[in-house]
Amino acid sequence: MGFWKSLFNTSETAAATKVPRSEGLTSSGFAGGTDTRIVFSTDRDIDLYELEELCDAVGWSRRPLRKVKKAIQHSFLVLTMWEQKGSRRRLIGFSRATSDHAFNATIWDVVVHPDFQGRGLGKTLMANLIKKLRSEDISNITLFADPHVVDFYRNLGFMPDPEGIKGMFWYPE
Amino acid sequence: MGFWKSLFNTSETAAATKVPRSEGLTSSGFAGGTDTRIVFSTDRDIDLYELEELCDAVGWSRRPLRKVKKAIQHSFLVLTMWEQKGSRRRLIGFSRATSDHAFNATIWDVVVHPDFQGRGLGKTLMANLIKKLRSEDISNITLFADPHVVDFYRNLGFMPDPEGIKGMFWYPE
Repeated sequence: MGFWKSLFNTSETAAATKVPRSEGLTSSGFAGGTDTRIVFSTDRDIDLYELEELCDAVGWSRRPLRKVKKAIQHSFLVLTMWEQKGSRRRLIGFSRATSDHAFNATIWDVVVHPDFQGRGLGKTLMANLIKKLRSEDISNITLFADPHVVDFYRNLGFMPDPEGIKGMFWYPE
Repeated sequence: MGFWKSLFNTSETAAATKVPRSEGLTSSGFAGGTDTRIVFSTDRDIDLYELEELCDAVGWSRRPLRKVKKAIQHSFLVLTMWEQKGSRRRLIGFSRATSDHAFNATIWDVVVHPDFQGRGLGKTLMANLIKKLRSEDISNITLFADPHVVDFYRNLGFMPDPEGIKGMFWYPE
């Protein structure tokens, strides 16, 4: 699958004119040097060890890579964020969504590397994920937010418990 | 795809000895006559007009059948409930779940026909859905409950907002 440009033909998050069309479009809001840019991708061919490293960096519990691979394969959409320096690319963000391809999507595993937090990149990652889901005619975009990120998602247009609807988790007895 | 028996080899919800093995196992807790039984199925070959009729009966807004068909195709699991009288079968319950096939599942569109409510059939439908998801090694089973069914799901082992996790819905600006 192609990179970013194959999915989004927006100018909203495309700032750089230097980016080769074959590589994708960069995000605005971050400057790490003349040769550094932020690239987004929907390619699922992700180095699982690199993803594990990213998740380690934010303190997530490790998960069996076999299952992570399966989850990526069976997600409706996977959107990754990379820092690109010359030809070198580093995974700095990840997100994915499950869906019935028609009505509902649920977003899981949103992560931005701590070194890259506080620059609006998480917001850009999410905005692009939403944009893509909407372009696929998904009307109901949902997620389950940990308490410390509820405000982050609220600022992106997510509402907790709308009309009293409750997010619920099943716990084995 | 085969009926009920092909997926669940449980005795928990199998009460009838009269049910031919080729037809599936029946649910306990309901007796509508000697020739009436309740049958469950994971077959996705559902008459969409019959499903629409069921959803109409509980007052749901109509949805384009093209999208309903797509959603059924792309759900991880679909579990339907039927009243069977002789060789005649009537759709009386429906449920489905999206999933990444590895970690998370989200349950959508749980419905039991009003004529069959109050007999524990919704509970049986959900119990079987959960059992199947667990058998597929899904660890995180979630749903979004309307206010009037929060207690129904709570009684089935679902917890609202565990550890402060909030269910959130995106609303277009």
